[in-house]
Amino acid sequence: MTKIAVVEGDGIGREVIPEAEKILRFFLPDAEFVRVELGFDQWKKTGSACSKESMKTLKEMDAILFGAVTTPPDPEYKSILLQIRHELDLYANIRPVKSESVDLVIVRENTEGLYSGIEEIGEERSTTLRVVTRDCSRRIAEKACSISIQRNQNKPLVIGHKANVLKSDILFRDICIAVAETQNLSIRSMFIDALCLDVLLHPDRYDVIVTTNMFGDILSDTCGYLTGGLGMLPSANIGKNHALFEPVHGSAPDIAGRGIANPIAAIRSAAMLLEHLGVQDAAEKIEAAVQQTLALGIVTPDLGGNASTRDVGENIFAKI
Amino acid sequence: MTKIAVVEGDGIGREVIPEAEKILRFFLPDAEFVRVELGFDQWKKTGSACSKESMKTLKEMDAILFGAVTTPPDPEYKSILLQIRHELDLYANIRPVKSESVDLVIVRENTEGLYSGIEEIGEERSTTLRVVTRDCSRRIAEKACSISIQRNQNKPLVIGHKANVLKSDILFRDICIAVAETQNLSIRSMFIDALCLDVLLHPDRYDVIVTTNMFGDILSDTCGYLTGGLGMLPSANIGKNHALFEPVHGSAPDIAGRGIANPIAAIRSAAMLLEHLGVQDAAEKIEAAVQQTLALGIVTPDLGGNASTRDVGENIFAKI
Ligand SMILES: CC(C)[C@H](C(=O)O)[C@@H](O)C(=O)O
Ligand SMILES: CC(C)[C@H](C(=O)O)[C@@H](O)C(=O)O
Repeated sequence: MTKIAVVEGDGIGREVIPEAEKILRFFLPDAEFVRVELGFDQWKKTGSACSKESMKTLKEMDAILFGAVTTPPDPEYKSILLQIRHELDLYANIRPVKSESVDLVIVRENTEGLYSGIEEIGEERSTTLRVVTRDCSRRIAEKACSISIQRNQNKPLVIGHKANVLKSDILFRDICIAVAETQNLSIRSMFIDALCLDVLLHPDRYDVIVTTNMFGDILSDTCGYLTGGLGMLPSANIGKNHALFEPVHGSAPDIAGRGIANPIAAIRSAAMLLEHLGVQDAAEKIEAAVQQTLALGIVTPDLGGNASTRDVGENIFAKI
Repeated sequence: MTKIAVVEGDGIGREVIPEAEKILRFFLPDAEFVRVELGFDQWKKTGSACSKESMKTLKEMDAILFGAVTTPPDPEYKSILLQIRHELDLYANIRPVKSESVDLVIVRENTEGLYSGIEEIGEERSTTLRVVTRDCSRRIAEKACSISIQRNQNKPLVIGHKANVLKSDILFRDICIAVAETQNLSIRSMFIDALCLDVLLHPDRYDVIVTTNMFGDILSDTCGYLTGGLGMLPSANIGKNHALFEPVHGSAPDIAGRGIANPIAAIRSAAMLLEHLGVQDAAEKIEAAVQQTLALGIVTPDLGGNASTRDVGENIFAKI
């Protein structure tokens, strides 16, 4: 039996996930759904953001639907999301950016780079080690290539790096180029700063972009501009044995509790989950329902409307 | 006597700098101008991108007008611009972003962070050390505060960091906050990914943004979108004893040699140089001439026109 973990987390995670979960349950009537409590609220309640048992549960699932977690400004608190990515070795962070004028996918390396966790903290000097390895670069390059081949858009695979400054990125760039060449893909190698600008100016030139962890983090938020903000953007964190799906947006404490968060990113994350599990036609049906709802102007305040999270969720659900 | 070095460098540097130099000479009739050859072309000619003598000359100047240099994709070649920033300890990279709807300044730490140069290269694993020190964080925070006070826009000083992931950024963030507090400035602390998006969505909310080296590099190109590209953006690299002024754009080998590069970024860099030297009213006069030329539609192809680099330069010069 298919097992799905549902993690609401904190803030608007608690508001958007129920809308996405409803749709998941519709397409997976026989699956077992397991609710897992974790995040900052959980930390305040129990002293631990994610119990060992919860982590174990996550590892037993076929897929995880994840809301958002709040990171308090406390140096001792380690982001539970990063811990999960690490423990489940979710090495590929796949972030599609789609709207009328743009249809691209960011493939972000999700396990190393500046997120190595190798740090030395001092009063006078603190350091973080940026780590690029052959193995992690190769597997993310292979993932990007396979997505590029599958999408078949006849646009080059773009490699975002800063090899003119970071020698560690020469390794990343060269491995990406080598992997793409063995797959006969055409390649465009770009400096990440120039890339962040060019993707805004000419989004139509882009299809699949592969990059390292922190650059992917920044690039994907930047691309949020092309869709009017992060409220629309889903993501998948994929590993060899595990998969977690989450909106790109965070827990948004500033608007949490008011029922006005845009649930579309969470709903699209559910669509990616269903696609990952191979549920026929689900992703297409969900996307069509999202488009219809948008066309009717039933949208939350971030998109200029006055619909509630629930309104948008129910409208999309009704159209599926 | 005031001494100014003029460095054209490579590619479009050779085309835009003469337009800016003309204006400099007009405002500084008694200065000594010293031409310095350096960059990739120089490297091809002599085997050295910048001779020891040239570096010494740069150190003897009151200010440097700098075009752009090409970095070839050769791991052995070290960016000469980075070397100059390092040797002259040009610790503050000041990047104003100005157009009809936006008026902000990025204050980028220019000596450490991911640009430390501390790297270990291997076949299987390469690393770069990201370094944040108290001293460098303090001096860049002080610079940002003094710019904020001078601009007096009544908007908070924004600190861009990623302290939720990088413990090294906790040091940076906390020092910036502490310095700003001693100056009674209000502060807004933001994650760099969210900042890159928000500045695009709400540029009017921003005045001065202080951030670390690589984040500042990416943020300033991203903000180029707000002005239609990089062709318009000047920058200053300021140290205790030296100052270098350069367009944010690079040498653009793809359009070099055709006389169509936009000279406005270089001309505005000259304006910043004159302001730095305390030349009364020069910056205002130059900006007024730039605005008039733009209003007449005398613009290069990047802005949708068909004027040449020379046309734009001469029109601006004539109006001064
Ligand atoms: C919350 C934070 C740790 C996370 C990241 O930096 O990866 C977020 O920004 C993201 O993009 O998923
Ligand atoms: C050319 C490169 C080394 C440089 C940098 O990364 O600082 C450039 O992108 C800049 O913004 O000045």
